[in-house]
Amino acid sequence: MPVFTKSALEKITASIFCSAGAPEDMAQQVAEVLVDNHMAGHDSHGILRIPEYLKSIEDGEIVPTARPEILQETPNSALITGHWALGQCTGLFAADLAIAKAKANRVAVVSVVQAAHTGRLAAFTDRAARQNVVMFMAIGTVDRPMTAPFGGAAAVLGTNPIAFSIPNPAGAPVTLDIATSAIAAGKVKVAKARHENLPPDVILDKHGNPSINPQDFLDGGFLLPFGGHKGYALAVIAELLSGPLIGAEAYPGVTARSGIFIFAMDANLFRPMAEYAPALAESLGRIKAVPPAAGFDEVMVPGEPEAKVRAKREQEGIPIPDDTWQAVCAAARSVGLELA
Amino acid sequence: MPVFTKSALEKITASIFCSAGAPEDMAQQVAEVLVDNHMAGHDSHGILRIPEYLKSIEDGEIVPTARPEILQETPNSALITGHWALGQCTGLFAADLAIAKAKANRVAVVSVVQAAHTGRLAAFTDRAARQNVVMFMAIGTVDRPMTAPFGGAAAVLGTNPIAFSIPNPAGAPVTLDIATSAIAAGKVKVAKARHENLPPDVILDKHGNPSINPQDFLDGGFLLPFGGHKGYALAVIAELLSGPLIGAEAYPGVTARSGIFIFAMDANLFRPMAEYAPALAESLGRIKAVPPAAGFDEVMVPGEPEAKVRAKREQEGIPIPDDTWQAVCAAARSVGLELA
Repeated sequence: MPVFTKSALEKITASIFCSAGAPEDMAQQVAEVLVDNHMAGHDSHGILRIPEYLKSIEDGEIVPTARPEILQETPNSALITGHWALGQCTGLFAADLAIAKAKANRVAVVSVVQAAHTGRLAAFTDRAARQNVVMFMAIGTVDRPMTAPFGGAAAVLGTNPIAFSIPNPAGAPVTLDIATSAIAAGKVKVAKARHENLPPDVILDKHGNPSINPQDFLDGGFLLPFGGHKGYALAVIAELLSGPLIGAEAYPGVTARSGIFIFAMDANLFRPMAEYAPALAESLGRIKAVPPAAGFDEVMVPGEPEAKVRAKREQEGIPIPDDTWQAVCAAARSVGLELA
Repeated sequence: MPVFTKSALEKITASIFCSAGAPEDMAQQVAEVLVDNHMAGHDSHGILRIPEYLKSIEDGEIVPTARPEILQETPNSALITGHWALGQCTGLFAADLAIAKAKANRVAVVSVVQAAHTGRLAAFTDRAARQNVVMFMAIGTVDRPMTAPFGGAAAVLGTNPIAFSIPNPAGAPVTLDIATSAIAAGKVKVAKARHENLPPDVILDKHGNPSINPQDFLDGGFLLPFGGHKGYALAVIAELLSGPLIGAEAYPGVTARSGIFIFAMDANLFRPMAEYAPALAESLGRIKAVPPAAGFDEVMVPGEPEAKVRAKREQEGIPIPDDTWQAVCAAARSVGLELA
């Protein structure tokens, strides 16, 4: 299994997107986001995605030369079109605009239409938190529904992720970054491959009956929202914020619609950093001090597992499974780049 | 079981708070919020709470003559102290200020310190949505921890509710209003009284082991967050937004701290109502059209169950269980008011 330093993996990734037609600066941005996802331990949103993104470029679903553009703007809001540019570039563009507006005007809302797949939302919300800006982000995907509504027997919602990052002057941002579905579709496939059952309450079969057999999902079943009606309600809110509210369906394209909703706020709106930092440390310390339950080693605060992997990978590099590496090499070859 | 019209129950409720020392306008506000909670079917946040609030007044935890006050203000933000006024009045004051600022400046954040118990958050976020303002609200309660962190074996979090309301020109607001704990403490007590087991994954016993026996919670156990690490992360975010970020602990009082965080946004920031309304109707219609799963009659969108109860109670009145009514009469008597 090859192991790469952060900068080596960024360089390789950028070179692939350059070969696929992206301008150098945009290829570099995509590389930084994908490799940052590895650094956070979320390999599912790293270079594993390269073959899929190159296929999207081939299919015209991603336009590698396109750049996001502001459609409407006020001092504390903006509507952006992604123009189906590389989604990571669009995510950075939108997040950076929201950060700048929050810093200048305390509070801001930025939304995006015609956005290609951005990947892990925390890549953007953490970026805000590291600049002392609180950020909330929601995406509702309508085109490829996989998740049933609470009490329903058909897929109608995406995995509709939401993220919330809170600045932490003493360490990594405190970050929530969750799909509102109970499980990722990819994990159902992993369970099937391992001949394992799923936990209860994560899928329904195609008739709307509870199941723990991964095959029932693959045979036309659905994901359930996490946490019953509560996760379902969050999924609906994510869809409405990133859809009807911002007008995503009014900007169609290669997919019927794809919207992003961002709320950003200067973390020092109500109090200076010197007062915020110790209060945050007190809250986090109180939570961390709870003794672990059976089966756990310690209580972690949201964002801490990612920070632990980051520290480890900064020392030891990023291991890439052989099959992922082979797939990336093959994808690179398809755009005329020989990696090995 | 007595049945009251909305206006009759408001009148009775207001008269009790007047007798308990509240000015007439504030007593009327509390009455409107408590009765609105009944109209939405959430009797747990209605007049059932009157004895508890009167006891808080007696104990000095609620000051019935106090009024909330703005401490800091900009065009798109405000920090309010509740001065331990009746929480419903503080909630309305904060929500109305956030609504006005969102309408005038598109996006706003309003926070509250020294807030007494506000009850059901949707009473405030729905109020915003009915005025065409999107509202998010979060409360983290630290003083009476009941909920264990994910992987932890002691209570450190409150039930930390969050709410999100989206305006719906064609009907009731689309509203999420959830505790981030898996179950309310009150419902554990109900299960115990009925000699019923709890569902799995809602409590731990005092040693941090899973249990379905309600007695284990009452013997020093804890609530779990809903949805595992996802609900836990939401609970932490709610605490950080309504605590360290706004400075809640810097304004102590009868309880160590109690903060509220509100984000509000003009629903027509990005598009006019004439475009928003049909897009929203399309999203909601698509979700509603999903056939029901086994054990369900229909798919409902968030806020719809409450709207159904409201329509029914507008016709048939609000039924109050005998024991609740007796307790309210006794509480009224304690402040010199004879209801029967």
